[in-house]
Amino acid sequence: MAQTSIIVRLELDHAKVSFGDVAAAVSKAGGDITSIDVIRPGKETSIRDITVDGGDHSEPLIVESLKNLSGIKVINVSDRTFLVHLGGKIVIQPTLPIRNREDLSQVYTPGVAKVCKAIHENPSKAYSLTIKRNTVAVISDGTAVLGLGDIGPYAAAPVMEGKAMLFKQLAGVDAFPLCLDTRDTEEIIRTIKAVSPIFGGINLEDISSPRCFEIEQRLTEELDIPIFHDDQHGTAVVVIAGLLNALKIVNKRINHVRIVVNGIGAAGVSICKMLLDAGVTRLVPVDKEGAIIHGGKYEHPMWQWLAEQPQVEKESGSLKELIRGADVFIGVSRGGLLNGDDIQLMNEQSIVFALANPEPEINPEEALAHVAVLATGRSDYPNQINNVLVFPGLFRGALDCRATRINEPMKLAAARAIASVVSNNELNEQYIIPSIFNDQVVPAVRKAIIEAAILTGVARRTPPDFR
Amino acid sequence: MAQTSIIVRLELDHAKVSFGDVAAAVSKAGGDITSIDVIRPGKETSIRDITVDGGDHSEPLIVESLKNLSGIKVINVSDRTFLVHLGGKIVIQPTLPIRNREDLSQVYTPGVAKVCKAIHENPSKAYSLTIKRNTVAVISDGTAVLGLGDIGPYAAAPVMEGKAMLFKQLAGVDAFPLCLDTRDTEEIIRTIKAVSPIFGGINLEDISSPRCFEIEQRLTEELDIPIFHDDQHGTAVVVIAGLLNALKIVNKRINHVRIVVNGIGAAGVSICKMLLDAGVTRLVPVDKEGAIIHGGKYEHPMWQWLAEQPQVEKESGSLKELIRGADVFIGVSRGGLLNGDDIQLMNEQSIVFALANPEPEINPEEALAHVAVLATGRSDYPNQINNVLVFPGLFRGALDCRATRINEPMKLAAARAIASVVSNNELNEQYIIPSIFNDQVVPAVRKAIIEAAILTGVARRTPPDFR
Repeated sequence: MAQTSIIVRLELDHAKVSFGDVAAAVSKAGGDITSIDVIRPGKETSIRDITVDGGDHSEPLIVESLKNLSGIKVINVSDRTFLVHLGGKIVIQPTLPIRNREDLSQVYTPGVAKVCKAIHENPSKAYSLTIKRNTVAVISDGTAVLGLGDIGPYAAAPVMEGKAMLFKQLAGVDAFPLCLDTRDTEEIIRTIKAVSPIFGGINLEDISSPRCFEIEQRLTEELDIPIFHDDQHGTAVVVIAGLLNALKIVNKRINHVRIVVNGIGAAGVSICKMLLDAGVTRLVPVDKEGAIIHGGKYEHPMWQWLAEQPQVEKESGSLKELIRGADVFIGVSRGGLLNGDDIQLMNEQSIVFALANPEPEINPEEALAHVAVLATGRSDYPNQINNVLVFPGLFRGALDCRATRINEPMKLAAARAIASVVSNNELNEQYIIPSIFNDQVVPAVRKAIIEAAILTGVARRTPPDFR
Repeated sequence: MAQTSIIVRLELDHAKVSFGDVAAAVSKAGGDITSIDVIRPGKETSIRDITVDGGDHSEPLIVESLKNLSGIKVINVSDRTFLVHLGGKIVIQPTLPIRNREDLSQVYTPGVAKVCKAIHENPSKAYSLTIKRNTVAVISDGTAVLGLGDIGPYAAAPVMEGKAMLFKQLAGVDAFPLCLDTRDTEEIIRTIKAVSPIFGGINLEDISSPRCFEIEQRLTEELDIPIFHDDQHGTAVVVIAGLLNALKIVNKRINHVRIVVNGIGAAGVSICKMLLDAGVTRLVPVDKEGAIIHGGKYEHPMWQWLAEQPQVEKESGSLKELIRGADVFIGVSRGGLLNGDDIQLMNEQSIVFALANPEPEINPEEALAHVAVLATGRSDYPNQINNVLVFPGLFRGALDCRATRINEPMKLAAARAIASVVSNNELNEQYIIPSIFNDQVVPAVRKAIIEAAILTGVARRTPPDFR
């Protein structure tokens, strides 16, 4: 879990208390002083800022123990996470300064008119003469934000801004957050179509299921820029990447294994689709009501689609029944559904991806006794399935080749690219997925996306390094 | 008019031609070489880039004369205006780097969740914890772009990007361009409302009349952030600023003068409204069909509104008839409507603002023989009426006090602030309006906007320097 990092501003009365006393009090309350800034030195009293890292929930304890010291006045307590958010996390910068009237007449009126005319005559020039070439919208309606659920467009903004930061830092993509004050499917589709001209791609984010399927599908059909719902496909791409590497470790082939996917929502549907594309022949999709079976009838259009696939098994039952004899379990559902006894019923050398957050489908400690490879969504265990591995390189590639869409072959290529960053020498049960700070990831994903886009005929441009 | 600045890449065959020949040819064709870069030196041939400033329309002539020189190969001709547009004119930058997993967990998951929760509990925190505090949307549907007219959303983008540059450079405001792929009034209103949560203000731009009136009015009523249609009010604010100073020069009072406004579209309506707010008692609005008269009946809702104002005169007639006996002419219409004889019929010490672009309502040379003060929309005459003087400081002020709207008193305060930047010592008939590069303009406009917002009860926050 996240470290709690706080900054405490203290006034010390030197006659009554020493800094050693402060350090001892913080330490006793479970905190660790990582930096000290003297704000106002003085003979009798001084003011200092101390930055304290604490364990989970230790913050009130630390502040309390400081307040109890005689000679100490706690002036202010700031949470570092809030401090980094003050005023937002992205800014917009001009690419060049306007120093004088001549500069102005080139970037604005009257000179800009000839650039406008050139685009009017040939709209594809928007890609060379405007920000469209490198700009993506990160769009949410705030209905399914992190584990917080439906918190609305205002509260969703910090996530979208964080994503924009990652886009720029990891892949040089300019990303702008748009948080929509509507939950209506048609209205969302209309709004995104209306604002689309300035963007080279649309990253949909944290839109609740099942609306997310129709929104993505309709926009893909009706716009000529790539649309990518990260909650569906970002997770799916990393899951497939991790699975490809995990299967190497246990020496099983993807077309032989039996795979249970639990939680057939936004991510679960995309995972099932990608597994089928990757060659899986024995798939068991399970949701709260039990297995989605071949030949069954379902209202949810994506479940119905699954029920029509020949690779989906016919056997009905509950998760606990169906996990017996599975080679792979992939959970994108909720915490605490399974225990060690359930996992023990899986085939030898089992693979478990328990991705519910913050509590996985099975307690990781309990699972580790029985499985060959374990992955979770958490950063405090090995093999974190993190979609930050996907979207930067994916849009970098899609923008560079001016892809009209992100299709299944492109996603599968991205998954293989991520898997390939872990070399056979490095590969082991603790390391099936590269770190998001591994600088090979974005170039590998970019290359795979461009190659697949060119092969499938959705690239409008061949980047210079592919000619 | 704008200087044409081109960069020509040449290959010189030294046996046949010298650089002196090149310089002579450029000079003869009306160009001026302002820089030379040797791209590939060589004994027999060399490649050089020459930057050439030319007068209006001289570009083809210069290139032609170079091509006619023997021993010269013109490899490429680039227009500097196009070069500065390559890839667009703004970028998005993170406010801090994500160096490691701890940074990531503060700006993104899982730490960002507590920031989201804080906004969910108190939505006004969006102003401190997201980019809303400093971010404005520059929104157009591309229907009335510069003098180009209805060129659509793709071709409008370079203007909106240029505006975003000016917002940042002049006032530190983060502005993002949105070009809408719809012309439907209701659809535009819905779209802007849907994307509004991330923005602290909306600058509408280049939306054709009369739709622009309803769009601005409805958004002002239905959103709680300031909405400002720059084509209407930006021009109007600078016109009033210039007029206030011009009246000082001719020593006439605003409540005594008779003012003819020609062209009652987006800007003309706003100018008329502001003139009435500023105390004008004798107003003659004129459009293509002649005067809009007090007591008349009109379909256009803004014309009807004007017809109901007691300060609007009752006398009908054409522009040429009505200009007789006017103290002030303000034209926001089209070129060449008036001549020196018409202007001569105005009262002594007349003031003429001929703002049609690129050709003013009256030839400036002809006007200057008859008027006390002349202003145009052009940068090659004194007294350029340029709305770049308004929007940066206006939104800086509106954001800083979290204004819910831009009302008439705020606009009038902005006009007076711009006028006040020209001191009485400096004021003369060639200098009634400060330069957009005058660094007193933005602080003066900001201050006026905040004071007026606080006075009229639309400020949600008192900035520290106003406490």
